[in-house]
Amino acid sequence: MYSKIITHVEKYVTPTSHALKAFTSVLQPLELKKKENLIHPGTYIQHEFFVESGCLIAYYLDKKGHKHIIQFAIEDWWVGDFDAFYNKIPSKLYIEAIEDAKLWSISFNDLEQLYHDHPIFERYFRILVTRGFISQRKRVLSTLQENAKERYLDFCKTYPNIESRVPNYHIANYLGLSPESLSRIRKTLTEEGLNIDVGQP
Amino acid sequence: MYSKIITHVEKYVTPTSHALKAFTSVLQPLELKKKENLIHPGTYIQHEFFVESGCLIAYYLDKKGHKHIIQFAIEDWWVGDFDAFYNKIPSKLYIEAIEDAKLWSISFNDLEQLYHDHPIFERYFRILVTRGFISQRKRVLSTLQENAKERYLDFCKTYPNIESRVPNYHIANYLGLSPESLSRIRKTLTEEGLNIDVGQP
Repeated sequence: MYSKIITHVEKYVTPTSHALKAFTSVLQPLELKKKENLIHPGTYIQHEFFVESGCLIAYYLDKKGHKHIIQFAIEDWWVGDFDAFYNKIPSKLYIEAIEDAKLWSISFNDLEQLYHDHPIFERYFRILVTRGFISQRKRVLSTLQENAKERYLDFCKTYPNIESRVPNYHIANYLGLSPESLSRIRKTLTEEGLNIDVGQP
Repeated sequence: MYSKIITHVEKYVTPTSHALKAFTSVLQPLELKKKENLIHPGTYIQHEFFVESGCLIAYYLDKKGHKHIIQFAIEDWWVGDFDAFYNKIPSKLYIEAIEDAKLWSISFNDLEQLYHDHPIFERYFRILVTRGFISQRKRVLSTLQENAKERYLDFCKTYPNIESRVPNYHIANYLGLSPESLSRIRKTLTEEGLNIDVGQP
């Protein structure tokens, strides 16, 4: 039942079976139907979530009601609103299932207790957050430096398993492009024979 | 000699004096003159750096030679190229002192050993990286959602002590504005009487 999340933990750290048991004992299962929200703005967020199956998007609605997708999350990703979770402020984000999804949740208090009792989980989350930080910084750099085609190729590398599952308009939104521009980019890549590796892990 | 960095550590965690001693014993001092580079592209980065005094910028030069500032760092900030440091790939960044600066450096191997021997430092860096992640995500959100005036006010909040020390053209660059646009924004804020708090911690 916990095999996927344990495999993910063991990809980064080597906890004792005692530490793993303490970890899984505080996980709560959660299921979402497609289009259901996990988080919406204005709420206090007391959990982080591990995606067991399915796909979610985290997005922000601006004052004009325009949607801006800031993250996709599929199997083996942690998702949540870190700012709201750690700083105990209301969320500014929506997190929505775009496929039926199964998640594990862990509460702030359980996580703090786990860090205290089993510092190996401090290590696990430090490594994950560092990877997240690097990925966010790459996104800032990529917005500054690259043209749309390069940004799309970067996206395919960052999210190799998502590209074939997610509607085009979501990907265009994440990249800050119109769906028409994204289609043109894909067409050019196909003509250049560069689409072979796209979407492959 | 270590008082500033120890104060910073103790702001987030409560290490034993034994753990603190292990930490300070692996710190190396480093001085940079204004305009000197700490890091430049194409090099392998084996250290992270704590700013004891002075100011640095981290920037990327695009293919056309245009500079894009992605971070400022003053006293009490850690700075480095996390992607290059953790993933053992050549740096893509410049990090340059824009004031004479005193730094502490810690090597990758010393840091790993420290994490192993004193998990409290795993906690310290997990907390710092989480704050960094949140700040990067805010920057992505801010680029998506806000107008230039709001982005400038956000900048003043994020970097309350930098604004009065850094040339305007650096701030304009970080915000993706022309220096002229930034001047106009500042003028408007002065006229609105909103400049009183700007630049204050």
